[in-house]
This record gives sequence, C-alpha cells and structure tokens, in this order.
Amino acid sequence: MDYGKLFSDDVAAFVPSPVRAIFKNYDFSRIISFAGGYPSADTFRIDDILSAAGEAFRKYGPGILQYGATEGLMLLRQAISRKYGVPVENIRITTSSQQGIDLCARIFINPSDAVFVNQPTFLGAIQSFRSYRAEIVGVRCGGASPGDFSRAYSEAVADASRKGLVPKFIYLIPDFNNPTGETLTLEQRRAIIDVARKESLVIIEDSPYKELRFSGKDVPSMYSMAPDCVLHLGSFSKILAPGFRLGWVFGPEQVLDQLTACKQSVDLCPPMLDQHIAAYLLETGLLHDNLRNTVALYHGKRDFMLKMLGHYMPSGVTWTLPEGGLFVFLTFPDGVDTVEMYDRALSAGVAYVSGAFFHTDGSGRNTMRLNYSFMDMDGIEEGVRILASLL
Amino acid sequence: MDYGKLFSDDVAAFVPSPVRAIFKNYDFSRIISFAGGYPSADTFRIDDILSAAGEAFRKYGPGILQYGATEGLMLLRQAISRKYGVPVENIRITTSSQQGIDLCARIFINPSDAVFVNQPTFLGAIQSFRSYRAEIVGVRCGGASPGDFSRAYSEAVADASRKGLVPKFIYLIPDFNNPTGETLTLEQRRAIIDVARKESLVIIEDSPYKELRFSGKDVPSMYSMAPDCVLHLGSFSKILAPGFRLGWVFGPEQVLDQLTACKQSVDLCPPMLDQHIAAYLLETGLLHDNLRNTVALYHGKRDFMLKMLGHYMPSGVTWTLPEGGLFVFLTFPDGVDTVEMYDRALSAGVAYVSGAFFHTDGSGRNTMRLNYSFMDMDGIEEGVRILASLL
Repeated sequence: MDYGKLFSDDVAAFVPSPVRAIFKNYDFSRIISFAGGYPSADTFRIDDILSAAGEAFRKYGPGILQYGATEGLMLLRQAISRKYGVPVENIRITTSSQQGIDLCARIFINPSDAVFVNQPTFLGAIQSFRSYRAEIVGVRCGGASPGDFSRAYSEAVADASRKGLVPKFIYLIPDFNNPTGETLTLEQRRAIIDVARKESLVIIEDSPYKELRFSGKDVPSMYSMAPDCVLHLGSFSKILAPGFRLGWVFGPEQVLDQLTACKQSVDLCPPMLDQHIAAYLLETGLLHDNLRNTVALYHGKRDFMLKMLGHYMPSGVTWTLPEGGLFVFLTFPDGVDTVEMYDRALSAGVAYVSGAFFHTDGSGRNTMRLNYSFMDMDGIEEGVRILASLL
Repeated sequence: MDYGKLFSDDVAAFVPSPVRAIFKNYDFSRIISFAGGYPSADTFRIDDILSAAGEAFRKYGPGILQYGATEGLMLLRQAISRKYGVPVENIRITTSSQQGIDLCARIFINPSDAVFVNQPTFLGAIQSFRSYRAEIVGVRCGGASPGDFSRAYSEAVADASRKGLVPKFIYLIPDFNNPTGETLTLEQRRAIIDVARKESLVIIEDSPYKELRFSGKDVPSMYSMAPDCVLHLGSFSKILAPGFRLGWVFGPEQVLDQLTACKQSVDLCPPMLDQHIAAYLLETGLLHDNLRNTVALYHGKRDFMLKMLGHYMPSGVTWTLPEGGLFVFLTFPDGVDTVEMYDRALSAGVAYVSGAFFHTDGSGRNTMRLNYSFMDMDGIEEGVRILASLL
C-alpha cells in the first residue's frame, strides 16, 4: 500500500532530529556524552519519589489513577501557584514542557506564518515550529544594548510582513539559553516586550533552567513583567526528573483556555501519579531541598568543565561562561566544522551537539554545545581532552 | 491584546467537549454518574503498582527517570510483543491511546480530507478529527451482512470523492464499540478491510476494551487480518488504569516511523516510571491476574444494569446487550430528547452521555450511553430508577 499518498502535508515538514540520525549507530554506553540536556541521575531521589507515591495513595486512595482534569491536577496547580506567586487560573499543567511548546505552536501557527527566535535556540522548538510549517526567523541582536534588541526584533518583524508573512510570536529561552547558556538582562527583556506589544505578538518564554543558578542574580521572568502577552513554560525535567513528563504554562486565561481545548483531544490529561508525586515533593519542601543539592552539584561540574576547557583547548577556541543551567557553548576558529567532525569524535568516544543544529539558517558549524550535568568528573576531563585532541 | 488575531485556523475547529460544558456546574460527588468511560477504582491494585515502581528502581536504578526513547521503553514494547504476538518493530508506545488517535489524525489529515467512522463512534475521536478540520463521514450500515457493510463504505467513499474530498482512513472500534457496546463479526471486518484495500485507505482500529469480554468468543483483530493497512490502537486505561496515560500502536513500520517523527516534537517520549510499572505488571502476570477479576466484576455490573433496565424502564425503550466492554446503549421512542433532558436528570442526581454526541450528523438525540463499570450496585439501581422516572 502506498502510504505516501495518504500522509498529510505536515508530514513532509517533520524534521527528524539530526542528532538521532548521527548517534543511532553508536553504542552510547561506551561514549562520553556531552550531547543530551540530561540531568545527573544522582539528583533523582528514589526514596522521596516512592514515599510521595505511597502518600498520594494513602491520602487520596486508588481513585488518583482515574482520568484527571485536562487543566492538570488542582493540587499541583495550587502548589505551583504558591511557589511562583501566579494565580491558579493562569496555570495549566502540560505533559512535559515539550508539549507546552507543541500546544503553543498548534494554537498560533498557520502554515507560512512567521515566528521569531533568539538565534541560536532550542532544537526541539525549531523542530516543533517547522512541523507546523512556520517560517522561522532567527534574530541576532548584534550588540547587547536594549536598542540593539529593539532594532533587531523590529526589523525582523517588518521584514517578515513585507514578505507577506503573518508574524505570530517570539520564542526565546531568556534564562541560561539552550544552547549558549546566556541570560538576558532586565533591559533586554523589556526591549523585546516593548516590540511584542507594539507589533501585537505574544512571547513564548521557555524557562526550564531558571532555578539552576550558580552565581549572579535571578532576573525577573518576562511573564512577571508582562502577563498579558507572555506565555511562560516551566518544566519539572531538570528540577525533578525528565521521565515524569511534566511541565506547566503561565499565561492569560483566554490563551490557556485554547491550549486546554487543544490538549483535550491530544491526550485528555497529564499523567496522574506523576502529578501527585510532583505536588507532594513541592508541598513538603523535598523538591526544594534536593534542588539546593542539584545546584551545588552542577555548579561544581560547570567549574570543572570550564577548568578543563582552559587546560586542554588550543588558543583560538572561546566559550561562554554561563551563570547557571546545563550548557557551555564553544566557538571554534573558522574552518572547524563540528558537523563534519562527528565521525572522528564519536569514533574517539565523545559526543556533543553541533551548534549548527540550533541555528535556523545553517550557520554555526564552527560552534558546539557541551552539557556538563550528565557526566562525572573523570568523564568531563577525558571528554574535553579527547575533543581538544581532534582539533 | 487581541489574541483572536493570533490564533491559528485550527483553533476555530476545536470543539470543546459538549459534556464538559454541561457537567461543569454540577457537583459530581453528589451525582450518580453513568457518564464517564471510567473503570472501577476497585480494579486499581495499589500494592502491585507500588511494588512495580520499587522493583523498577531496584533493578535499573534512578536512571529510569531520564528521557527515554520516543518509540517507547523497549522493555514495554517487548512485553507487549510477547503478549500479543506482534513484532517489536511494529509496536510504538503512546502517551495514552488518545495520543495515538491524535498522532494518526496529524499524519493523515489535511483540512477537508474525508475520514469515515462507523456511526455512532467515540466522541474523543470525533473531536480530534474535527480539530484537524477533517470532513467526518458517519457510515451507517443499514443491515448486518458483509454486503451491507461493503455497500455502505464503498458508497461513502465514492460520495466523498465526488464532492472533491480526498478520502484518508476509516476509524472504528470493532470490539465493544463506544458507545453502543456492539462487536463487529469476522465477516463484517473482512468486508471493511476489502473496501479499504480497494480504495487505498488505512483503517484505524481503536480497541481499548477488547480484553473486557464477558461472554462469546473473541474476534480476531483487524490488524491481525491485515497488518499492511491497519493501525491498531491499544490502551492500558481500562486494563490497568487511565492515570498512567499509556497506550500502544501496532502498524506498518513506514507509518509508525512517521508517528514517531511527529511524537518527537510533541512530547519527546512517554512517561518513564509509568512504562516501567506497566512492563513489570505485564511480565510478572500481575496485570493478567487482575484483569480476570476486573472482567468478573464488570460482568456482574453489566448483568445487574441490564436487570435494572428491564425492571424500571417503560416499554418502548430498547438497549444493546454488549458481550463486554463498559457501555450499554439505550434507544428511546421518538420524541424523547436526551440532550434536552440533561437539566432534569442532573438536578435529579444522575448523569449520562447523550448518544447525540457520538453521532457526526446531529442525529441520535433519542439515544443514551450508560457506563456500568464505575458505580456500585446500589448506585446502578438508583440511577436507573431515577432515569426511568424522568420519562
């Protein structure tokens, strides 16, 4: 049977992860991996999680395993409300923040609409927006001043409109950006919000790493600065564990109601036991306690990776100095191609993600994202040593 | 801000559940509910589930909570493979079988494509297909012979083509249909498969109740009869518990690969601990043992509901005699309107779902779906008594 004739037009727009295609032939149990945005499994507290599950059953009975509300478990929404100071009615639970990205894409993007991302940005968001056939415009701000940000975003929107594209939203990761680790200042955030308001766009503020701060000061979320035009995506993946597939969205009720209407036929409700576990760990303070340890652990790993980069990398290689999050971003001299380097690197036993995959325009082939949270210290040293030896 | 101008064209096609709108003003802790397709919470084995979670951590460590494969946990795919005799490569795990429906809809439906459903059918599937702007054609077979089925489906496809619509798939629930409880015979299934093959359509065989059989003989799945053109959706919701949000798809690899490509940007992977729990309960036989008790429990409830219907309902009311599943389907004399009846019924303390909501064409207002798995025996008697008193 010719399935090709039955597939929807979207299918041609699905872009399987380039990373999967490259990695699938290698045995990752034998590879030092700086590739995934993986937390350290040392931060997953089995005892707390099993206690949480047992307590949920004890308090609420087996009925917790019935279908739940599409909006999310009320206990969990309330716990998140108390923690972040956002009203419950402006909170929805998603089945991972990747689902949050996908639902936002679904409710805003018509094929050929323009969406704007801070270049470079999260590969999973690029994939999602491409799958809805958006025109993804990567915005580089040239400088760091609010004026540079204003200009870059305003020009990108005007340029898209001139081409007959309908601008819809700005997507960005303002806290410890994936892949660069950089954080937008208050003034840079304000500049982007001003452009969004002027152009009647929403902002999707994706912030899964916000609480993984090692130094410096937390910058207020864009949602707190502009709750009328920002959808804020939060995630339990890095502060609890990825396997629960739990995230949340803050936003205006009118928009959240559409997300909920969409989610209802997508999967009816988020996983129930997982939500109860998350609610319990939030309410008891166990998540917070563990998070302090997680931050300390990743702080040490970041410091060590930066030290190893300084020790092994040849001159001419530069890298970001993230104040938190999971990633360091390397820039190599022109002529180094991190996509072409893959075979040599994987054969030598180290994996990374080429920075090119986080760019919307094919640029960035001389850049590389390294994750430091997953490997242990010996692995970090050895992996950096091997990478440096390839140059 | 005017969000309306930013929403995609799909948003106008989202049809919030009519059931939610009607029920939201009532306190369901005080209502006898025959409405939801809810299993009995008595069938959720807390001890087994907690043991399964503990064992998964003991055997595999905290790393089970990392991101997993988009295709699903291999342990679980293997357990399902052994149980159902389907090769692992033809199996994917979904985050609920509702997600299975949504992914199928996404990879096949362009706006205005025609999809064919056996009338009446699952409300959640109608919602999903509508959200992708399909033209949903409800097919009534008139009689029960294979010839009747052939004719009805062939004519529906030809009619759609004449209107310039592109036919894509046939969706049906051949085992204990939601809402009617009826099961398609082998010959009826074969007739539909022959039409699908002739017209180059795929069949989406949704079968969440197949193992909830009380009497009669299991009929082979349409997937087993035609693995080249059938996508079979299975679910843990009714044989384990809904809250885990776990289902599976059997199908041709080429189609499953597209589902996987789509799912990757939708939520990356299904919930991990939940998959481990399901795999453990399958492998140890605990799920099977519990299922025997579940079937016996629902058998008794079905018998009791049928007895109460016979006792209380006035003449002129008829109902199906399901050999399994969760639902009985009532047909009232013309003039009875089960949508209009809602206020009186809910005020009197009983909830159901009007059969009209399972019809694609607004018909069926004199029909009603009753679930018997959720309420206890006293509730079943009282609820039927109240319903009958409204007529």
